[in-house]
Amino acid sequence: MSSYTITIQQPNRQPQTLTAPAGQNLFSVLREHGRLVPSPCGGKGLCGKCKVKISHGPQTLNATLESESSFLSVEEVKAGYRLACRVSISEDLTIELPAAETGTAQIMSEGGHNVPLNPLLTRRVLQLPTPVVKDQTADVERVEQALGLPGSIKPELFSALPTTLRDGGFRLSAVLAGEEVLALEAGTKSAADGLYGIAVDLGTTTIVGYLLDLTTGRQLDTYAALNPQQRHGADVISRIDYTLEHEQGLSELAQLVRAEFNKMIAYFSRKDPALASNIYQLVVVGNTIMMHLLAGLEVKNIAVSPFIPVVTRDFTYQAAELGLEINPRGKIMFLPMISGYVGADTVAAILASNLAEQAEISLLLAIGPNGEIALGNRERILTCSAAAGPAFEGAKIRYGMGGLPGAINRVQIEEDLTYTTIGEKPARGICGSAVVSLTAQLVKAGLMESSGRLKTADELGDEYPAPLKARLCKVDGQPALRVASQADGAVEDIYFTQQDIRETQLAKAAIGAGIRILLQEMAISITEVKTLYLAGGFGNYIDPQEAVEIGLLPREMADKVIPIGNGAGAGAKMALLSQDYHEKARQIRAKTTYLELSTNSAFQDLFVDSLEFR
Amino acid sequence: MSSYTITIQQPNRQPQTLTAPAGQNLFSVLREHGRLVPSPCGGKGLCGKCKVKISHGPQTLNATLESESSFLSVEEVKAGYRLACRVSISEDLTIELPAAETGTAQIMSEGGHNVPLNPLLTRRVLQLPTPVVKDQTADVERVEQALGLPGSIKPELFSALPTTLRDGGFRLSAVLAGEEVLALEAGTKSAADGLYGIAVDLGTTTIVGYLLDLTTGRQLDTYAALNPQQRHGADVISRIDYTLEHEQGLSELAQLVRAEFNKMIAYFSRKDPALASNIYQLVVVGNTIMMHLLAGLEVKNIAVSPFIPVVTRDFTYQAAELGLEINPRGKIMFLPMISGYVGADTVAAILASNLAEQAEISLLLAIGPNGEIALGNRERILTCSAAAGPAFEGAKIRYGMGGLPGAINRVQIEEDLTYTTIGEKPARGICGSAVVSLTAQLVKAGLMESSGRLKTADELGDEYPAPLKARLCKVDGQPALRVASQADGAVEDIYFTQQDIRETQLAKAAIGAGIRILLQEMAISITEVKTLYLAGGFGNYIDPQEAVEIGLLPREMADKVIPIGNGAGAGAKMALLSQDYHEKARQIRAKTTYLELSTNSAFQDLFVDSLEFR
Repeated sequence: MSSYTITIQQPNRQPQTLTAPAGQNLFSVLREHGRLVPSPCGGKGLCGKCKVKISHGPQTLNATLESESSFLSVEEVKAGYRLACRVSISEDLTIELPAAETGTAQIMSEGGHNVPLNPLLTRRVLQLPTPVVKDQTADVERVEQALGLPGSIKPELFSALPTTLRDGGFRLSAVLAGEEVLALEAGTKSAADGLYGIAVDLGTTTIVGYLLDLTTGRQLDTYAALNPQQRHGADVISRIDYTLEHEQGLSELAQLVRAEFNKMIAYFSRKDPALASNIYQLVVVGNTIMMHLLAGLEVKNIAVSPFIPVVTRDFTYQAAELGLEINPRGKIMFLPMISGYVGADTVAAILASNLAEQAEISLLLAIGPNGEIALGNRERILTCSAAAGPAFEGAKIRYGMGGLPGAINRVQIEEDLTYTTIGEKPARGICGSAVVSLTAQLVKAGLMESSGRLKTADELGDEYPAPLKARLCKVDGQPALRVASQADGAVEDIYFTQQDIRETQLAKAAIGAGIRILLQEMAISITEVKTLYLAGGFGNYIDPQEAVEIGLLPREMADKVIPIGNGAGAGAKMALLSQDYHEKARQIRAKTTYLELSTNSAFQDLFVDSLEFR
Repeated sequence: MSSYTITIQQPNRQPQTLTAPAGQNLFSVLREHGRLVPSPCGGKGLCGKCKVKISHGPQTLNATLESESSFLSVEEVKAGYRLACRVSISEDLTIELPAAETGTAQIMSEGGHNVPLNPLLTRRVLQLPTPVVKDQTADVERVEQALGLPGSIKPELFSALPTTLRDGGFRLSAVLAGEEVLALEAGTKSAADGLYGIAVDLGTTTIVGYLLDLTTGRQLDTYAALNPQQRHGADVISRIDYTLEHEQGLSELAQLVRAEFNKMIAYFSRKDPALASNIYQLVVVGNTIMMHLLAGLEVKNIAVSPFIPVVTRDFTYQAAELGLEINPRGKIMFLPMISGYVGADTVAAILASNLAEQAEISLLLAIGPNGEIALGNRERILTCSAAAGPAFEGAKIRYGMGGLPGAINRVQIEEDLTYTTIGEKPARGICGSAVVSLTAQLVKAGLMESSGRLKTADELGDEYPAPLKARLCKVDGQPALRVASQADGAVEDIYFTQQDIRETQLAKAAIGAGIRILLQEMAISITEVKTLYLAGGFGNYIDPQEAVEIGLLPREMADKVIPIGNGAGAGAKMALLSQDYHEKARQIRAKTTYLELSTNSAFQDLFVDSLEFR
């Protein structure tokens, strides 16, 4: 089999030359040689983060695929940018990696802001004085004195210490978590040896993990997988039910997600099996139910009023206690939660947004099955969870789907309806941003009443273009709008139904009312709110103006929306890289008040009042 | 089988009436009914602590055994006192127990001084507010708030908590070690329920344990057993050798002593198996090697210069980590040590003696295989270990034995040699106090030169009584003195040999020189020393005057000797009953400087200079 030469150029590094067999994927080749380009989707072509510039390699340079085009600007295409995961090697290549990969003591990540590196974990190399009769200091105290930390070595480390010390000629390295010694290793290790941590965003649907080098702050690798608990329920409530209906259900769900974590750890260690033992910390965020299930804690009391979790403060297990296969003495740190329905993912998103550091008041909205909303500033934060239903995630929408290639992500209704799809693939369904777009455009075009009732073709006057009228039809007896058809090249005919509109209506009303109740409770006007942070992939795609038009977002915030991407993951990374940010997460919890909406009559009134599209 | 009625009277308690079968042992009957009379020897007739007054029971009253007489004064015998463990029940009895058994919040124990009760362990009963929608505080935080101790519940307790809380109607009891929650139990337990701790003096030869009620400070029970490690070596050095010569030797020795601890725990729980789970703390003292072997820590580096232990500071294991069968989350607390050859037993004895609290300087001497000596006051303590050999424990003495019934414990040489034995039993051997007594009397009577050479009958003038001369003989070719003979009623002929004198000489010279080197190092004169505390059973029997005469103790201290009995055990109990005393033990370690004698040339000179008997 023929092979080709890949030359890698990167600011501040010597050029590197690799050899790769023909047909291999460029992204995989770079990973295997330790050149870790960012890829939250794990090389699946979904995130567009693995952009590389190809400066030499004429064929490859001109081979940009359709699937890449939604992630690349025209300028980038012209300059030779490609997504590494979409490039199959078929000639010699010279590629340029961005400087960001050679990290500094900073992270920059989707949604997060830069964090000065101050990890809980450190490795110190010690050269101790050799014992003599005049200095009979015992082994344990000898090390503790050198560390300046009396009492820092736990008894479980005592028995190995005499050999460690003498094998290494009284030179050893200590891994510390703050002032607690986690490991003592004989002479050979140096402070430059790896020390790693993992930040995990544990979602109901998806698990995303980030491997970080704690000595440089660099992100080395990412991992994304579906949450394997899904086989026992798509949403949190059905997972809770599973624990109630099956005697071993709770431990089964815990084992499933722990096993997936171990797959992630194995994946991160695939090149160097020793790496796993140098991972000493894992910071996890997720909604309160996912956090409980990972810890193996009962969730049944969260499901019923008064909705009581076992724990919401931050806590830490030893890795061995949860069977997670990083260093057995490593720390599994759960970031704090607020309540049963406002979890550590929201706390992490608040952390990533910087909302809690500012004097001015901002809003944060994380849209998922529940819409978690936070309103506040450095003084005080109010939060609530609006049971929005998963309309904006594409679920419960007849032709709904996630933000994957082929999803319709934006529509435009003028003479006729036009749409775009993710990756410019043939349309396969409707994702959340198109749900917003569709409802907004339907109102605007006069095809829908403000009550949410879809008009029939008969009701429309002659001024309406015929192609539009032709789209109004019935599906299974209910009024619907044909969004795409096979005739246009879609995979199948795709409709947006009256029922879909009702789902959307409930979701937007819940979120809209949630925002208004927080404003009321804080006794401020919307005009006093500086910024609206939108967390989640959804926030990257929607048109804020359309979200305003359907009443999902307040009109006054139309120009103040800042999408922060995966704020949960970014916040988790920040807490991993800096104890200060872990502490800030605790402070966020401390200053946050949770407002229960399910029993709040003012919320019910606002909800009803928010149902109309106007 | 006939049975008898035992009526128990005790100050401040209702009289109690028991029924016991004929022939049963009174001590056992009292124990089985929870009337726990003190008995460090565990009912073996060796300690004399289980004195009870029999006020009605004519036969029993007059049946005092010879074995009891050494523990009872004439007045006590007349008043009806007996040792409960020597009484076989053969009639109805009325007995009076001393008030001490119904404890106050104080202990008084052999050698220790009174300690205001302030245990690390406490049990608190909480009635929590029931969760409502307006108060969705999570379970963990709900308990921590009630305790006023945020973060006090470890994650390992989380998973049982929801059930504990709801089973008990949000009433629960918490067992705390300081500010750390060790256990959470549903509603039924109350603060009055038992909470127990064990103090252990872990000796090379003997293990003595004390069961204490941590809510009252009362001593409830005692346990004494031989250290089962003895099968692998009588002294610490041969145990260290065992760990070097057998691959599993270290863990084997650890397992042996842990198994004996578990026997003790089972013994303490024999009436109430639930008791073991309410024992949450075990404080252990012992020499540094015994402490290491219990913890399973390597001892080989203590055996060779520069004599380095793994650890000397105080440390704590979870019971489950050592396989000790108190509550699995209970704390096994090792009191601090000073060096490889000055252990936690010495620290505990210093604690019990109060030496470290006083302005004036005192000496403390614990005589065992090594003579541990401490000199100091509340400012500063110097300590050393004089390799005395076990002469004063009766070992390495040809006819030596421990302080058991039949041991010759004192001699008198005038016209002839007379002696007394422990328990007035037929003589079986010579114990440590008689070794002191014999050497002192031999010098005084002129039968031995000050060099330690035993004279022969031929060398003695006519002024020496014939019976004495007749005692000077040879045993296996070496000069010896016949101390007892079968003709006098001894079990066998008993000799004190020239070799025995040499052993004694080395021992007393090592201790004598050790005391002098500490005085030199502290730059004070012996006249400035206020008190000489003598720790160990030995100290209760010897005649300080004789100890002075042979140069074991300084002449100036003859009238200043205070025997403190088992100071190690007393100190362990004090640390168990009061965190303040545990802290004092740490302070003793911090202010103590260890002086290594084995390489100290000034000590060698003083040692040689101390060899003569003068």
